[in-house]
Amino acid sequence: MSLNRLIEKIAETQNPTVAGLDPKLEYVPGFIKEKAFAEHGETLKGAAKAIWLFNKGIIDAIHEIVPAVKPQLAFYEMLGIEGVKVFHETAEYARKYGMYVIADGKRNDIGSTAEGYASAYLGKVRVGENEYEPFPVDALTVNAYLGSDGITPFTDACKKYDKGIFVLVKTSNPSSGELQDKLISGVPVYEIMGRLCEEWGRESEKRYGYSGVGAVIGATYPEQIKEMREKLPNTFFLIPGYGAQGGRSGDLKAAFDSRGLGGIVNSSRAVMCAWQKEKCDEQDYAGAALREIIRMKNELIEITGEIKLK
Amino acid sequence: MSLNRLIEKIAETQNPTVAGLDPKLEYVPGFIKEKAFAEHGETLKGAAKAIWLFNKGIIDAIHEIVPAVKPQLAFYEMLGIEGVKVFHETAEYARKYGMYVIADGKRNDIGSTAEGYASAYLGKVRVGENEYEPFPVDALTVNAYLGSDGITPFTDACKKYDKGIFVLVKTSNPSSGELQDKLISGVPVYEIMGRLCEEWGRESEKRYGYSGVGAVIGATYPEQIKEMREKLPNTFFLIPGYGAQGGRSGDLKAAFDSRGLGGIVNSSRAVMCAWQKEKCDEQDYAGAALREIIRMKNELIEITGEIKLK
Repeated sequence: MSLNRLIEKIAETQNPTVAGLDPKLEYVPGFIKEKAFAEHGETLKGAAKAIWLFNKGIIDAIHEIVPAVKPQLAFYEMLGIEGVKVFHETAEYARKYGMYVIADGKRNDIGSTAEGYASAYLGKVRVGENEYEPFPVDALTVNAYLGSDGITPFTDACKKYDKGIFVLVKTSNPSSGELQDKLISGVPVYEIMGRLCEEWGRESEKRYGYSGVGAVIGATYPEQIKEMREKLPNTFFLIPGYGAQGGRSGDLKAAFDSRGLGGIVNSSRAVMCAWQKEKCDEQDYAGAALREIIRMKNELIEITGEIKLK
Repeated sequence: MSLNRLIEKIAETQNPTVAGLDPKLEYVPGFIKEKAFAEHGETLKGAAKAIWLFNKGIIDAIHEIVPAVKPQLAFYEMLGIEGVKVFHETAEYARKYGMYVIADGKRNDIGSTAEGYASAYLGKVRVGENEYEPFPVDALTVNAYLGSDGITPFTDACKKYDKGIFVLVKTSNPSSGELQDKLISGVPVYEIMGRLCEEWGRESEKRYGYSGVGAVIGATYPEQIKEMREKLPNTFFLIPGYGAQGGRSGDLKAAFDSRGLGGIVNSSRAVMCAWQKEKCDEQDYAGAALREIIRMKNELIEITGEIKLK
């Protein structure tokens, strides 16, 4: 169990950024949709094909300078089976380039069922004499509303296959505080969740000081980032909400330690829709995504300084 | 938005039971696995085929006396794409018999992403001029750790397509209390979630007194069932944890109102593994599932009395 490979990729690329692949059809340039629909019609298969071509173009363009991608399962599931196939294909393709793949599924259930999700995304499944990896990913986001016995199957799989999880602590959305900010014996729920991350990661290998149990903390809540960084010294942060949701880079400084480690910042819409914002030729959508990633990298490296593993 | 069709099916069958279809390969009789593996080898496709044949046999046997099935997505996702196909096939098949299908996915995310899940399971997806239903289900379980704006996309889809959701309130697992029993200003987290269900269901049509926003409350916590029934008069309960997890029928009486309405009790392992418990001929596994369902129905109808819609 660890996030070591992710951390090493961040240092290698000098880029604490993860590209969120949350594609909706309206983000996809017309020429790609035309090609996909010509082949498969205006069907779920056609839509999924368009998403696949779109993702592939972006991954081809950015793989050398971004350590990780985070496909959001919701956007693949909404295209049914054909969409789930594209999720698989996307994860596999990113991995071939050596990118770290975080499946954003926020999965959760009671222990015996969480085992199923753990096998699906972090482990292997035995069929007779053979073993299979159902979905080729390196880490999964999970929701811990059900408590420890809903998390143990995930950490068990992480131990066995050297993978990682990110537990929802303080999410980036406006109403996250409805439950997460409430006080229990004077301690906010997000802090209770954060402390559980430290606990669940206690026995994890920590080559770079961080365990295999990370925490999701939104860029839209900079005070909580600062507070949690102080209170959770061994927990790596996955930070969504940068850009389109309003999180700003200066607010993120507190997430990082003196080596520039400690978190990875997600950007989805700003990357996927860069071509629309730039108003560039739609054929150049992947180039626009790359330019946005470089802009973001420069912004973040300004606050982290040179990223060092030691 | 409503759970009316579910409630009507419960009255029609006089059975407040939902058959949980959470199939693992070890629950599947040897003759089915042999047939599936002969066709597809010991592969994920072979395993998925075995699960499909198993599910089909159970649905064929029980569809007349059970109002609903609840396939647990984790067990399909763990077989990769082939498993997700079988989830789709199972839901579609149960619906052809008029059964109500509850997808147990405990989905959750920020608003713009929850829209994706809502389209996948409760709504429709537009591709050009066409509309598609990605997965053919009637209701979905959801996790509300992210607060109201993570739930609104689900209730919006429910309103548009007359579907329902079940929000995790007090889950059946041993460590559910770690967060759910904690007090916030003297009120346990599960009660806060329960009261939110009433709130989110306020504008729902309530032909039988219950809204389209139900609550998941485990059979293993009878006191909370009683307490929540008193405090949440318009919230229908989905009650897992009966049987294999230790919940007993007598403890469930409080879930039901004077008409015998108010909840539906899930049984998964006891139904799927009835043939193993009975030690009957494995060819008769579906018959054993039917006998277990009848046993459970008789046990529950004893406590609900005749189920009436008025």
